[in-house]
Amino acid sequence: MFELHPRLTADTIPVTDWPLCRVMLMRDANYPWLVLVPRRHGVTEIHELDQSDRQTLIEEIAAASQRLQNLTQAYKINVAALGNVVQQLHVHVIARFTTDPAWPNPVWGAVPAKPYADSEMTRLLGAFAS
Amino acid sequence: MFELHPRLTADTIPVTDWPLCRVMLMRDANYPWLVLVPRRHGVTEIHELDQSDRQTLIEEIAAASQRLQNLTQAYKINVAALGNVVQQLHVHVIARFTTDPAWPNPVWGAVPAKPYADSEMTRLLGAFAS
Repeated sequence: MFELHPRLTADTIPVTDWPLCRVMLMRDANYPWLVLVPRRHGVTEIHELDQSDRQTLIEEIAAASQRLQNLTQAYKINVAALGNVVQQLHVHVIARFTTDPAWPNPVWGAVPAKPYADSEMTRLLGAFAS
Repeated sequence: MFELHPRLTADTIPVTDWPLCRVMLMRDANYPWLVLVPRRHGVTEIHELDQSDRQTLIEEIAAASQRLQNLTQAYKINVAALGNVVQQLHVHVIARFTTDPAWPNPVWGAVPAKPYADSEMTRLLGAFAS
């Protein structure tokens, strides 16, 4: 049975469920940042998904990336499945800007997470979920 | 026409061409590290590939990940398409170990690249290309 890792639950806000992935917004206003988690039990690597799920995953990654770019006019989209700390397979889809606090470096560990203003979070959640 | 970014050419050793991607080994003995570059002109984001290329890309990512894990017994595989510095779409597939110099952080910028011994590079290239 699919269960979200407690760390992912704590760090994100649920946005919607797509055919394969649960889509969540990272609680970090430094970057518009989605996390996609395939709703499969015990999977930690992309190559552990079956081919059908992999084909769905890449389409959901592309859809999340396109939506983020359309919503934010991001300069670059970063896509990553790392999982060194939280092993449950999860894919980061992050809108990057040359003015963001980590640019041009990866976001992980760059600066502390910045809380969202309620109004901004509501706006983003509405836009992503629509 | 497909051309590899000069920075990618400088930082890697060619391994083989798969149906979509040029497969390269990063010149960094700190981590067994492949870079996959779709042989398409002017593409910087996964969502800019057409669906057929995306489906091939995820299968080539899975094949590279499985091969790296089989060859190295890695603890975790990191997969990432960042492109903040080199915008040409390229996917990192990195074998991670709890004993590697960046663990558990991402590898980018963690420690300087470490040159390969010729013998180790020859062994890895042979294994990946086979």
